Amino acid sequence: MFIAFEGGDGAGKTTQIQLLRDRLVAAGREVVVTREPGGTALGQEIRNVLLHGDHVAPRAEALLFAADRAHHVATVVRPALERGAIVLQDRYMDSSIAYQGAGRELDPAEVKRLSLWATEDLLPDLTVLLDVTPEVGRARRGEVHDRLEREADDFHTRVREHYLALAATDPGRYLVVDAALPAEQIAALVAQEVQS
Amino acid sequence: MFIAFEGGDGAGKTTQIQLLRDRLVAAGREVVVTREPGGTALGQEIRNVLLHGDHVAPRAEALLFAADRAHHVATVVRPALERGAIVLQDRYMDSSIAYQGAGRELDPAEVKRLSLWATEDLLPDLTVLLDVTPEVGRARRGEVHDRLEREADDFHTRVREHYLALAATDPGRYLVVDAALPAEQIAALVAQEVQS
Repeated sequence: MFIAFEGGDGAGKTTQIQLLRDRLVAAGREVVVTREPGGTALGQEIRNVLLHGDHVAPRAEALLFAADRAHHVATVVRPALERGAIVLQDRYMDSSIAYQGAGRELDPAEVKRLSLWATEDLLPDLTVLLDVTPEVGRARRGEVHDRLEREADDFHTRVREHYLALAATDPGRYLVVDAALPAEQIAALVAQEVQS
Repeated sequence: MFIAFEGGDGAGKTTQIQLLRDRLVAAGREVVVTREPGGTALGQEIRNVLLHGDHVAPRAEALLFAADRAHHVATVVRPALERGAIVLQDRYMDSSIAYQGAGRELDPAEVKRLSLWATEDLLPDLTVLLDVTPEVGRARRGEVHDRLEREADDFHTRVREHYLALAATDPGRYLVVDAALPAEQIAALVAQEVQS
């Protein structure tokens, strides 16, 4: 089972992944917690290139994320799924579609095609979308960290709207939760969805 | 005018680019000499990731080359062409198609599609293919340098055959020259083609 967590910065993905992991481990399951970008040694190098470059052409940025994803899926995610582990992942292809597609104003369908090619069409069984407004996200994450986080609110608004649009096109594969709810309440909703 | 030089390692691309550059500069033209991967600062970082990683998943490798290309075309090649310069480039998309497509046994058509997306369909006006057998290439380049160069001869044979197949599909855009000829003789053939 492959579960992706998506949402703007400050949505609380890390906390929710930890809480779900604890529950699943307590139930005796093997759980692999991982993330994109940077879920592999190669991905760490790509992440450094991505987050600290002065200017990265939009298509180059999309291709770098896709490269990280291709390596991560081939060497971490697929092997874990094949041995029966549950994979909980911080960001997956919807991040690329929302950030590089809607955020950077590339064609989201083309950005999605890159990710499908990169992963040989691996889709999550469930995507948990922690929906956060740009204002709440900014307040929560505090200090500005990197190039993407410095983007203006209208960028984050486009990203959020595109996330919600993705969830709306395939509701069976998405759980959309208001990230402003208390963490334990979100965790209960997520656990319930994973159970069913 | 955009001229790409292609061919296996040891084919003599650097020498031929230098000789053509000297001729064009002497004729009063602005010439930009560049290369892929690594023609930009970002590309240098990507090149380091590519050439020195222990294992890079094949699709990740293809996507990294495409990312380098996207940034290079957007920030170096197109601006140079737009101001009327002649761009002489050491490797372009045919390298990806031949190395990651035929060499790594990805689908060459899919690898080409990545490059076309990366570059917004920028094709060279002329591609000079310096055709070299794996044996001659190996003898010329001497010491083994990086991960790609260490590949076995059958890899380089697939690459060479695919290069020749690409040239055969669009002969008007290619000049194929036997790289075993003396450098000055090759330079004369190239200069003649560029003139016409």
